[in-house]
Amino acid sequence: MKKYLITGFSGFVGRHFLNYLHSLNEEIEVCGVDIRPPAFELSVYEDRLRISFQVVNLLNYDELKVVLAYFKPDYILHLASFSSVAYSWQHPEECFVNNTNIFLNVTTALKEIGLKNCRVLSVGSSEEYGNVTPESLPLREDRPLVPVSPYAVARVSQEMLSKVFADNFDMQIILTRSFNHIGPWQDERFVVPSFARRVLNLKAAGASAGEIETGDTTIVRDFVDVRDVVRAYDMLLTRGRAGEVYNICSGKGQPLSEIIASISDIVGIKVTNRVNPAFVRPDDNRAMIGSHDKISGELGWQPEIPLRKTLEDMIAEMS
Amino acid sequence: MKKYLITGFSGFVGRHFLNYLHSLNEEIEVCGVDIRPPAFELSVYEDRLRISFQVVNLLNYDELKVVLAYFKPDYILHLASFSSVAYSWQHPEECFVNNTNIFLNVTTALKEIGLKNCRVLSVGSSEEYGNVTPESLPLREDRPLVPVSPYAVARVSQEMLSKVFADNFDMQIILTRSFNHIGPWQDERFVVPSFARRVLNLKAAGASAGEIETGDTTIVRDFVDVRDVVRAYDMLLTRGRAGEVYNICSGKGQPLSEIIASISDIVGIKVTNRVNPAFVRPDDNRAMIGSHDKISGELGWQPEIPLRKTLEDMIAEMS
Repeated sequence: MKKYLITGFSGFVGRHFLNYLHSLNEEIEVCGVDIRPPAFELSVYEDRLRISFQVVNLLNYDELKVVLAYFKPDYILHLASFSSVAYSWQHPEECFVNNTNIFLNVTTALKEIGLKNCRVLSVGSSEEYGNVTPESLPLREDRPLVPVSPYAVARVSQEMLSKVFADNFDMQIILTRSFNHIGPWQDERFVVPSFARRVLNLKAAGASAGEIETGDTTIVRDFVDVRDVVRAYDMLLTRGRAGEVYNICSGKGQPLSEIIASISDIVGIKVTNRVNPAFVRPDDNRAMIGSHDKISGELGWQPEIPLRKTLEDMIAEMS
Repeated sequence: MKKYLITGFSGFVGRHFLNYLHSLNEEIEVCGVDIRPPAFELSVYEDRLRISFQVVNLLNYDELKVVLAYFKPDYILHLASFSSVAYSWQHPEECFVNNTNIFLNVTTALKEIGLKNCRVLSVGSSEEYGNVTPESLPLREDRPLVPVSPYAVARVSQEMLSKVFADNFDMQIILTRSFNHIGPWQDERFVVPSFARRVLNLKAAGASAGEIETGDTTIVRDFVDVRDVVRAYDMLLTRGRAGEVYNICSGKGQPLSEIIASISDIVGIKVTNRVNPAFVRPDDNRAMIGSHDKISGELGWQPEIPLRKTLEDMIAEMS
């Protein structure tokens, strides 16, 4: 029986990863850990998966070590992080230290317990690339990293440490730089579900047309369906090369304005947007697009769910 | 009166920096902090400098903040670090966390106290470059960094954070990547004084020829006199550009075998070396040579003390 430990279990990606494991119809045992319990029901998965959940503060080394020593995972999907870029500006030291410390706690515990064969997927972010020029798109993994926020620096540090640990302590750590993932159940503070919610609210209010307030909608981002993402994560956990980093992205750039247009079309009302300068982030990249050639070439992963389908599913779930 | 705070004050570089400030014959106040008191006498400097020393554990934020708030430095030379690469292999987590934490404690305290104009020189290492190819020599600052030890990752992280803080919080942080510095008073565990000590021991025993045990002496390193280094540090503190990193190096590569030959020649006995495979580090770079074009071009710094003179002064001090 394969054993997966998932940190940051209670979030949006943890839930989709659990869904994915459930779909495999294999003998799998899952231990979820998070600082808060999941808001979703575990019972719907228990027909095929053996699942337990533990409240664990990953900053507390002893708590974490007990869970790892007891569960002895074959795979760790390390989703947990202090992932708000905005928060990292308010509390740069705390954000940096906490992100690197929870990662170091995981690796130290694995070494101390002697779980040398446990494979760890450390989930990073396209934020690591920092400010990029149009000529450098689509971004490949060998692109120099110029992190521009404390959060991004923490992620790059974690990557460099992983590489050192993989090369020198034979640890099986695989890394991602994940681009904007979207899908059902995403927190509505994120940009795409926030657009969708506001358009749905206009519809619910009986409007046939309306306006929403946004930041700069000409910026281009690489949106990838979270269900494609979790499939990539399992491929990397089971078959990725230790010490290597892989982009997870759609490979396509989408202006935010087109996302709004698609949402309007799906919901069936005419929506325009008005730019509120307060929402425009001056340092934002104009465009971020990744290349998934590395994971496609090595493992055959391809994004499969078209953006239109992702948006339809999100709106159906939110309606 | 200019006020300098020096962390890691009690070490070899701190002493030389104090010497340099003393030589300026200006109105200068110095506050040295270190976890241990200096082994050298402060009284010899007190004719021209106003000096105080405080035992401070930089991992203790409150201790550090009190000192900074009281002294209100114009300049901080941040020499303190957990700088042993070897120790970083035995305790990678501790090395990484401690290095980044002391740096974050300094920056956080500066922000909290509101010392916005204080200029900080954060001293890094050529270790940050990691494994380099012969074609990439001499190493320039824009070279991609591939840190290969936990110590080196900590240094690169500190650099990236400094850049983010300089760009976004208007902090006056300037950075170095310092190559192997040598000179009088250096700890004899370091390679060059360790050679010198053993040759001097042979001489003291009355030998006219002898043999010392070494690692691989065909490797090439860039040795720069510590007195040139501290002059560069003061230039950078007073005139370097915030958020920028500068190599401090001689620009020349020296095989260790030539160092031994020069020491033999200065001491006046014939010394050969025998390679002990136990001392050979398998992952060492064959050659590390830096380029100092950036600091030379921007600030006019040049290394001035020839290697022969450095070795003569070291041997005179050790004799």
